[in-house]
Amino acid sequence: MKSPLIEELITAFRVLPGVGPKSAQRMAYHLLERNKKGGQQLATVLHRAVEEIGNCILCRTLTEQETCSICASNSRRASELCIVESPSDISVIEQSGIFTGKYFVLMGHLSPIDGIGPEQLGLDLLEKRLAIETIEEVILATNPTVEGEATAHYIQQMARAHSIKVSRLAQGIPMGGELEYLDSGTLSQAFLARNLMDF
Amino acid sequence: MKSPLIEELITAFRVLPGVGPKSAQRMAYHLLERNKKGGQQLATVLHRAVEEIGNCILCRTLTEQETCSICASNSRRASELCIVESPSDISVIEQSGIFTGKYFVLMGHLSPIDGIGPEQLGLDLLEKRLAIETIEEVILATNPTVEGEATAHYIQQMARAHSIKVSRLAQGIPMGGELEYLDSGTLSQAFLARNLMDF
Repeated sequence: MKSPLIEELITAFRVLPGVGPKSAQRMAYHLLERNKKGGQQLATVLHRAVEEIGNCILCRTLTEQETCSICASNSRRASELCIVESPSDISVIEQSGIFTGKYFVLMGHLSPIDGIGPEQLGLDLLEKRLAIETIEEVILATNPTVEGEATAHYIQQMARAHSIKVSRLAQGIPMGGELEYLDSGTLSQAFLARNLMDF
Repeated sequence: MKSPLIEELITAFRVLPGVGPKSAQRMAYHLLERNKKGGQQLATVLHRAVEEIGNCILCRTLTEQETCSICASNSRRASELCIVESPSDISVIEQSGIFTGKYFVLMGHLSPIDGIGPEQLGLDLLEKRLAIETIEEVILATNPTVEGEATAHYIQQMARAHSIKVSRLAQGIPMGGELEYLDSGTLSQAFLARNLMDF
């Protein structure tokens, strides 16, 4: 016999990823019993974010400006373009600090069965950028899944048509990984791509 | 290099119980990339809930009315009062369908170290109800923790002063539980409270 508004709040929390009925109830009660101020703050910021955040007109990542901070930056090399599936992939790559070029975000991967074709991934915009800008290398950083590979292959063809060098992130054993717990797909890949060591 | 508003949203999600930096980021990106409508709905309902939901003037549970639906109901027995620590405890008990009386919600347990005394738990309100209403039995359903037991003991004394019968939920092995994985505290309790079986 929960109040209708509490029921509504619990249902609303179910939109969050990985949140089932139990966690949703815990979240609702936690905020109402112990942190109304935090709840109010979350409601306000979430409202603003949903209203104001759109896609960067150059790379399609999420931003509240017209162009994101990376696209707008002069200190990032415009000659390298890294293609990722989602904005969170940018976060991970930026954390590593290994890449100093610019990005293009697909917001997904090719998946004809779900109606996601080249237009949905903004590949017409990418094609235009490849044609106009002086990009020397396209780095494909889509996920090593079937769909990610198919998407990478598609973009590889596109870049080749503009005579642009294309690379793909290396696959193999992750750092600190143990062979014992590795899946056979990764292990096979690591064998096939093995590197000769110096004497 | 996330946008400031996205950073703010990720921080705001951290108020939820059990949500760390990674989950908060996942939630923010999930809503912004895939379910802006659901995010908008969550923001609206959360805003309303935090504004409108207060405590029932009779039992202190969370409700947007002055009195909650259980306190307002004529079909619930007013002679039995079940004392619980939080509104979510009411949900669990209601799901079992075993109890048809009314509730009183402490919104916590006695914890002098955190400055939570009888007033914070609304025990003055409970005392008044015990004095005025015709309550025949007080059922103590606080958690079987040190604080829960202390709180139960305190209320037991209060009810005794009004010559009201007091009971406490039985403790023992949970249904479907396996002895092998039981903590020794529960096992000791189950031994002490063992029931003689019929011949």
